[in-house]
Amino acid sequence: MKIGILTGGGDCPGLNAVIRGVVRKGIFHYEDDFLGFLEGWRGVIEDKSMPLNLDAVSGILPRGGTILRTSRTNPAKRPDGIERCAATLEKNKIAALIAIGGDDTLSVAQKLHENGVKVVGVPKTIDNDLSGTDYTFGFDTACNVVCEAIDRLHTTAEAHNRVMVVEVMGRDAGWIALYSGIAGGADVILIPERPFDIERVAESLRQRHERGRYFSIVVVAEGAKFSANAQSSQAAPVLQDAEKDEFGHVKLGGVANVLAREIERRTGFETRAVVLGHIQRGGSPSAFDRVLATRYGLGAIDMVHRGEFGCMAALRANKIISIPLKEAISRNRVVDNEMIDTVNGLFEKTANKQAVGD
Amino acid sequence: MKIGILTGGGDCPGLNAVIRGVVRKGIFHYEDDFLGFLEGWRGVIEDKSMPLNLDAVSGILPRGGTILRTSRTNPAKRPDGIERCAATLEKNKIAALIAIGGDDTLSVAQKLHENGVKVVGVPKTIDNDLSGTDYTFGFDTACNVVCEAIDRLHTTAEAHNRVMVVEVMGRDAGWIALYSGIAGGADVILIPERPFDIERVAESLRQRHERGRYFSIVVVAEGAKFSANAQSSQAAPVLQDAEKDEFGHVKLGGVANVLAREIERRTGFETRAVVLGHIQRGGSPSAFDRVLATRYGLGAIDMVHRGEFGCMAALRANKIISIPLKEAISRNRVVDNEMIDTVNGLFEKTANKQAVGD
Amino acid sequence: MKIGILTGGGDCPGLNAVIRGVVRKGIFHYEDDFLGFLEGWRGVIEDKSMPLNLDAVSGILPRGGTILRTSRTNPAKRPDGIERCAATLEKNKIAALIAIGGDDTLSVAQKLHENGVKVVGVPKTIDNDLSGTDYTFGFDTACNVVCEAIDRLHTTAEAHNRVMVVEVMGRDAGWIALYSGIAGGADVILIPERPFDIERVAESLRQRHERGRYFSIVVVAEGAKFSANAQSSQAAPVLQDAEKDEFGHVKLGGVANVLAREIERRTGFETRAVVLGHIQRGGSPSAFDRVLATRYGLGAIDMVHRGEFGCMAALRANKIISIPLKEAISRNRVVDNEMIDTVNGLFEKTANKQAVGD
Amino acid sequence: MKIGILTGGGDCPGLNAVIRGVVRKGIFHYEDDFLGFLEGWRGVIEDKSMPLNLDAVSGILPRGGTILRTSRTNPAKRPDGIERCAATLEKNKIAALIAIGGDDTLSVAQKLHENGVKVVGVPKTIDNDLSGTDYTFGFDTACNVVCEAIDRLHTTAEAHNRVMVVEVMGRDAGWIALYSGIAGGADVILIPERPFDIERVAESLRQRHERGRYFSIVVVAEGAKFSANAQSSQAAPVLQDAEKDEFGHVKLGGVANVLAREIERRTGFETRAVVLGHIQRGGSPSAFDRVLATRYGLGAIDMVHRGEFGCMAALRANKIISIPLKEAISRNRVVDNEMIDTVNGLFEKTANKQAVGD
Repeated sequence: MKIGILTGGGDCPGLNAVIRGVVRKGIFHYEDDFLGFLEGWRGVIEDKSMPLNLDAVSGILPRGGTILRTSRTNPAKRPDGIERCAATLEKNKIAALIAIGGDDTLSVAQKLHENGVKVVGVPKTIDNDLSGTDYTFGFDTACNVVCEAIDRLHTTAEAHNRVMVVEVMGRDAGWIALYSGIAGGADVILIPERPFDIERVAESLRQRHERGRYFSIVVVAEGAKFSANAQSSQAAPVLQDAEKDEFGHVKLGGVANVLAREIERRTGFETRAVVLGHIQRGGSPSAFDRVLATRYGLGAIDMVHRGEFGCMAALRANKIISIPLKEAISRNRVVDNEMIDTVNGLFEKTANKQAVGD
Repeated sequence: MKIGILTGGGDCPGLNAVIRGVVRKGIFHYEDDFLGFLEGWRGVIEDKSMPLNLDAVSGILPRGGTILRTSRTNPAKRPDGIERCAATLEKNKIAALIAIGGDDTLSVAQKLHENGVKVVGVPKTIDNDLSGTDYTFGFDTACNVVCEAIDRLHTTAEAHNRVMVVEVMGRDAGWIALYSGIAGGADVILIPERPFDIERVAESLRQRHERGRYFSIVVVAEGAKFSANAQSSQAAPVLQDAEKDEFGHVKLGGVANVLAREIERRTGFETRAVVLGHIQRGGSPSAFDRVLATRYGLGAIDMVHRGEFGCMAALRANKIISIPLKEAISRNRVVDNEMIDTVNGLFEKTANKQAVGD
Repeated sequence: MKIGILTGGGDCPGLNAVIRGVVRKGIFHYEDDFLGFLEGWRGVIEDKSMPLNLDAVSGILPRGGTILRTSRTNPAKRPDGIERCAATLEKNKIAALIAIGGDDTLSVAQKLHENGVKVVGVPKTIDNDLSGTDYTFGFDTACNVVCEAIDRLHTTAEAHNRVMVVEVMGRDAGWIALYSGIAGGADVILIPERPFDIERVAESLRQRHERGRYFSIVVVAEGAKFSANAQSSQAAPVLQDAEKDEFGHVKLGGVANVLAREIERRTGFETRAVVLGHIQRGGSPSAFDRVLATRYGLGAIDMVHRGEFGCMAALRANKIISIPLKEAISRNRVVDNEMIDTVNGLFEKTANKQAVGD
Repeated sequence: MKIGILTGGGDCPGLNAVIRGVVRKGIFHYEDDFLGFLEGWRGVIEDKSMPLNLDAVSGILPRGGTILRTSRTNPAKRPDGIERCAATLEKNKIAALIAIGGDDTLSVAQKLHENGVKVVGVPKTIDNDLSGTDYTFGFDTACNVVCEAIDRLHTTAEAHNRVMVVEVMGRDAGWIALYSGIAGGADVILIPERPFDIERVAESLRQRHERGRYFSIVVVAEGAKFSANAQSSQAAPVLQDAEKDEFGHVKLGGVANVLAREIERRTGFETRAVVLGHIQRGGSPSAFDRVLATRYGLGAIDMVHRGEFGCMAALRANKIISIPLKEAISRNRVVDNEMIDTVNGLFEKTANKQAVGD
């Protein structure tokens, strides 16, 4: 069977492990042939590809990025995009396509499926916010990178009696902030799910200071929002949604820099912002992510041979199962109240606030 | 409420995170006092302890080991052990005890519970083999350490055209070998659950060699066994159960060294053994383990205040729940056939063998 | 002999190793007593200190930051600062003082020396730019942190066909940029010693692109400057010296963000900036820095007992020697032309430019 | 100019960085062509090679091992070895050869040079024991790996009140043991340069125990020797020189296991041995080693074009210079008395012993 593979959207540690899992099982157990389309859907539209055999996937397991490269090209946004994809697949005699990507990539997969193409999806989101699956690969690696950075910042915060504000990934969901914040021993964790009152954050840091802790770590997800109804008499700063620069790139550091300035202004404590940015998504995957991504790959090639098209591999209760693509791309999985309450157990109660969110 | 804490058995990354989670929530939310007994049950028998307040648990989250130290002392094996434990607890006015440890430690907790002591358990096993709980802390860290070691060994194996045999922890269960073997891209993984036929292992390495891969990585759990009914005409080596030295310490490297010698003898490929040993259980915990261990700690202190004594915190479907100690200490959770079949998808089929086990 | 110790200026991996080296040799070999002044010179002015014995320095070797904390307080900038320092030292019967710090900290040490106080200095600059000494501790750790970050960014740059601009420490000297740039395989390295022509940087990236390398890494020291006489017809951007925010903190990311924008504008290649910031100076020191810092500590306590006051420990040809403080604090050691020429050997010649600097 | 390259002897982090440095400068600045001989001198004898262009060396900087692979094949030990090497070089029109390796590899280079072949050497020894050069690449990486392992072992030693004996590389010179021992905070360091008295080691551990330190770390180089004239009434154990197994491989763990047993027998303290073995020489090089190895590569290609044949690149006072091969391969650089005295400053004096060596 001749099978196409592509990786789309932002890169994520574990993509190569998925590709390797698919190709090894396909060759060793099903005698498949593989064609890797380059740079996500762009490679399908433009018919750019490379053959994928055992040599091609040898040694890629520990490597970040994706040997197929990636892009945010979305064929559904071009008039003839879907048709051109179907044409390329037919021309190359692709019997089935495995698309590895996030919401955007998989929504194209769903459209192709509706057009009769045999497609299987593998979910990818470093933010771990996909409904329908318990864990996505890349998230654990990102948490380890952030946690190690916070460990480093702890020693410098403590040496200088400083507040350090650390901005991490998470535009819509706070999983990375929450997990790496707990792991790094953060004193305040701010997530998109709970708009925060800047005055309460300041109060919480003052209270800690009074207990003799002269330094603090604040972890903030890039998508965290200032609360509109701040109790403070001073108006809360207003952050526009995801500021972009002249090239359309989202500007990082927006929330961290404003937050650091407001904290220093309100508490008088020396405060610095650190924006971790792209180092969170590159580099060698953790053991957990390598195993998880490999299992997704093994699951996806099995789905192809069981004819489960229009479906996506998912992790549930530590098993890889198959769920309809449609279901998966519908809704983000955000941090729930129960988890927030649990985590708040770690922190001192203040008059009217908990350390996570509001 | 005055609460005792102890850590028993082998050390494990995350023990300090559990202690910190218990103490922070206990002080911040329940106004508890804490006494830490030193060196596991030995501290209870001999009434050796230290007070645990916020200062004592500050900065311990990223540190391996346990600030309370540990031992394998088992009061149940001494005539008056259980009585002396009860007496120490009464003398110190301990209203409840949180015992963090493995089978052995928790079986003492169960005995004390049967004697009327209010005890809550937190499970600890780096091998991840406790029935009743989905994941135990320390396991993820161990897998990362082994995976990083295998990455290092890969480059040297490849440079020299060698077979490297890597012995990892796992006396009764092969989880560490299996997960770190997949994560490290091992070519053969040998686990206690499946006695292995040495001739088949050799055959599998020869087959790989014929495909032009002149180096291989074999991961073997310390408890893996040679199969009695080996198909080879040459008798299989016999390994005694857990060889011990004159001081009663289990000797590491038994299986790796015999295996390396047999592989070289049968294949003619230069083969070396590496025994990772104690580096697998020390050092700073991974982000995953810090979060998991913290959640176990938060769960345990809640159990104390809900009066769930004679019980143990457990992770099920990503929630911390409470289960009877008796249930938990009864049976080891080993690698199941379904998982082995899944993993075998990664490897070439040989005439009559798969890469994992037999 | 009763000896005082302090750490001043920005924190730096290895400070604890110096303290430990001083205290261990002092106690084991000279029967000294130690008093640690807190937060640099502030602790001397305000007479805040802690006793330093073997227990206090136990376990601090692998830890970043400084157990004595630090500050940028400069007594020489207060009318009675030097007198108050001398008074505190006398009051505490300090026979000699060991001051660990950079230019600023050591210039105070020199002033105290001129006022008759017995002072020995230990140089500290993460930028490795102190004349008089071959290597300073902390630099190697910073290079490893940056190098690991560049490794991570490489995979993401390659997956997305992007230019990544990485801003690293180095206000006056480009050592960190140069070393970590070479170690990380950067394609362009920009350092304060050589103002750069933005159009030549763009040209160099275009040339690489034409060779089929669709991604690039640009490492830029925070103090790198745009060249005034840029050959480009388009005016070069002007960067003010070390922009500061309302609290007087230097703003990071100035040069990286402007550079990224200019590169994308001139080449059309998608470009992103990453500002590593404070993670470069925190965390556990590398083996090299632990050894070097320990040797500085051992050297400093020997200098005290040999009566070499007004002097500083220095590394020359892999030996710790003693040089006058005055000499050491006079002049920065910058990257020399010979080193730049050597490194340029790694890069393609362009019409009129080399990859490092101009 | 057509230039051959090979890597011989044990693998070492940084080999790929040397190859990359040579090839990049050769192509970018001298318009050379390169042929890489495979598996050290074996590839020259058997005429096995691969072309080395910019693509071949792209992405290899952060990778351990060597893309040319390596072997211990020594042509000088075969009757017609040197002739066959010369013949292969002539057949391939190789104008000059760059040989990267240790004593053994470079002694062949010297022989070829004497036979009229144009050869330049690059020294490689992970043990850092080459006379004529201040530092060799790979050593820093090995020290970081050992130091990280000791950090891990520290937490487990402390949790269990154990003595941990850590065996590291170093058959003839104790540099790795000394540097990583200092960096890891070892309590006893045993090196080949100073045969040790086992009873004094035990006494030193007892003395530490009496100070309330119930755990200890002993770092021992694989080549460390028991002293013949041990003061103890109990005879010292005799270790044969470098025990070998039936395949001629040196057995690791000899000294560590005997030492651990003797320590436990003499002190009664629970003692465990850890043999780090091959993980010390594999994996990604440190930033320091990447820079150093790159500089060696740049130096070697310059030497070829300056016609400095029969010579080897060397590091002196932080500059790459050229020295005669003959000089370099003559004598090992061992740890000198001055360095041992310095390091002993860190340790408590015992009646008649210092912590390093005798």
